[in-house]
Amino acid sequence: MTTANTKIKKHNFSAGPSILPQEVMQKAGKAVIELDNIGLSLLEISHRSKEFISIMEKARLLVKELLGVPENYQVLFLQGGASLGFYFTPMNFLKEGGKAAYLKTGEWATKAAKEAALVGKTEIVASSEDKNFNYIPKGYSIPNDADYFHITSNNTIFGTQLKTFPESPVPVICDMSSDIFSRKVDPSKFAMIYAGAQKNIGPAGATIYIVNPDLLGKTGRKIPSMLDLQVHIKGESMYNTPPVFAVYCCMLMLEWLKKTGGVEEIEKINRQKADLLYHEIDSNPLFKGTTERTDRSDMNVTFVLLNELLKDDFDKMWKEAGISGLPGHRSVGGYRASLYNALPLESVELLASVMKEFSQKKG
Amino acid sequence: MTTANTKIKKHNFSAGPSILPQEVMQKAGKAVIELDNIGLSLLEISHRSKEFISIMEKARLLVKELLGVPENYQVLFLQGGASLGFYFTPMNFLKEGGKAAYLKTGEWATKAAKEAALVGKTEIVASSEDKNFNYIPKGYSIPNDADYFHITSNNTIFGTQLKTFPESPVPVICDMSSDIFSRKVDPSKFAMIYAGAQKNIGPAGATIYIVNPDLLGKTGRKIPSMLDLQVHIKGESMYNTPPVFAVYCCMLMLEWLKKTGGVEEIEKINRQKADLLYHEIDSNPLFKGTTERTDRSDMNVTFVLLNELLKDDFDKMWKEAGISGLPGHRSVGGYRASLYNALPLESVELLASVMKEFSQKKG
Repeated sequence: MTTANTKIKKHNFSAGPSILPQEVMQKAGKAVIELDNIGLSLLEISHRSKEFISIMEKARLLVKELLGVPENYQVLFLQGGASLGFYFTPMNFLKEGGKAAYLKTGEWATKAAKEAALVGKTEIVASSEDKNFNYIPKGYSIPNDADYFHITSNNTIFGTQLKTFPESPVPVICDMSSDIFSRKVDPSKFAMIYAGAQKNIGPAGATIYIVNPDLLGKTGRKIPSMLDLQVHIKGESMYNTPPVFAVYCCMLMLEWLKKTGGVEEIEKINRQKADLLYHEIDSNPLFKGTTERTDRSDMNVTFVLLNELLKDDFDKMWKEAGISGLPGHRSVGGYRASLYNALPLESVELLASVMKEFSQKKG
Repeated sequence: MTTANTKIKKHNFSAGPSILPQEVMQKAGKAVIELDNIGLSLLEISHRSKEFISIMEKARLLVKELLGVPENYQVLFLQGGASLGFYFTPMNFLKEGGKAAYLKTGEWATKAAKEAALVGKTEIVASSEDKNFNYIPKGYSIPNDADYFHITSNNTIFGTQLKTFPESPVPVICDMSSDIFSRKVDPSKFAMIYAGAQKNIGPAGATIYIVNPDLLGKTGRKIPSMLDLQVHIKGESMYNTPPVFAVYCCMLMLEWLKKTGGVEEIEKINRQKADLLYHEIDSNPLFKGTTERTDRSDMNVTFVLLNELLKDDFDKMWKEAGISGLPGHRSVGGYRASLYNALPLESVELLASVMKEFSQKKG
């Protein structure tokens, strides 16, 4: 490993799988070749080995420590992505004959509600579909008789984010895939938080569940083993073979976050990155943001060129600057800069300066 | 990467996750640091990038080529392990009001049948539970009215293997987790083959499905998206973010297998490894095998010491020889040597010679 490897080669704004800290990738690459001088690769050890049990335990404890998870809550690293989480949710929390409430703020929120509708009755309490999900609905009321209220804290595709969490008369379940660990939240306010790893936690292949176990086992439904959170809790996240490599990377990423100062510190840096980029978008005559200002995401900054004819020139310019992963999702168009935890401030400074320079040339 | 890294440090007989070829681990470790000189790690690229689409495509094609999969069959790399496959199976193939037939040859076969019973009617056509699963039942008949017949080709825990596949009047579905790619099979004889990667295909975190799509969509059941094989086929194995790293390693492993001479060649080597070890067990007065001779697995060789008092001495001896992963599963006891594709003949020769030497000392 030369030091040349540790500097940034590309400024990676990818929406996920996304940038991880260089030191995480270096350590993970090394462990694939040999784990901690044990004479074996991370890939070939049993998940029941003392080495892996300690990795899994450390990862789970770091989640608890960094987010301030209540003592009795359980942390799991499972497979299937948040997409399988959409189905885990009603299977474990929607009672037979009960009802679930959903806030429809984007594509993933819509998919979550759709999977729940296969299990029982669902109610969409509010939606921002009327304006292509460019804002977060407000002023809605959550039905008292719902088994839970499901929200998506950050909408990766549309670039909006819940800045505060609703007071709810019923348990709240949150898909936090694209902003978990990016800002302080109070996990005790949630019945469950779940999140695909491949944005702020690690590589693709692991999904975190943070669960209040007191609320489980009440649906009156026979749940298949692999979809039963109680089974996974009893198995200490190893009911079946876990995604060993992905969990190891999550552990490294959480260690990095702790060293960086934890969630409180990263939130400040994330705010700084987002402010810098939104300021450039707002002050630059060639660009505009696509979302309501009050609901702007600190994680996924979506913007467009006012003059589409300039697209090829702008694309050429940011690519030449060593930037990657900037094109927006097809349902929004334009650009999306994802500013996840591992993206350094200097990458955002570079993007802002490229935009400024572009405006000076073309404006 | 020094050449020192490429020689075997430990002789790894682990039952899974298990040994992978040294060159696979070297290449995978390198890609985690940087993929093919693109300036980005494998972990931080989008699964929709041209780089990853080509990795997924290559992996799927290699499966088809190496196993001789019929043209119209589909190959998927999904998450959840074979344990989620136990539930995928009835959800996609067990018709509403229909029936599924199961052959109960071990722990995983039992779990597969249990998950199916949550979906519909199941019938156990035969079981070897009476003798702690130390043989494969024969002479049973498969009901004509079953929607499918489910078998487990190799029983990792108990060390038995189906040497031939049953002629069946109904579609056959096979959990091939612990012997896929180890010997020639005819995939056209199966409605579906599925297998957790972490034995013969790659690391933990990916599961292969080889499916005849003509048999899908006939259950009359609304299937949740993430459990619907038709959804995953339509999404070309990327309906949601796939386990990027695990799929990449599978591709490397399949490339290695192709270079090694393919399934036909590896089958010869596997047979040689198994013959060598079973010969030692049968001729050594201190040991005996735990399974019926006709049903012995070429992948997982289970054996015990006739005199349990010698255990500590034998354990000391193989550990000192650089052997790891030899203890048997708690439900069988004794020892289990897993001889998956990546385990070199020299590791088996070493184990046999340790056993011989032990017998000369203690016999």
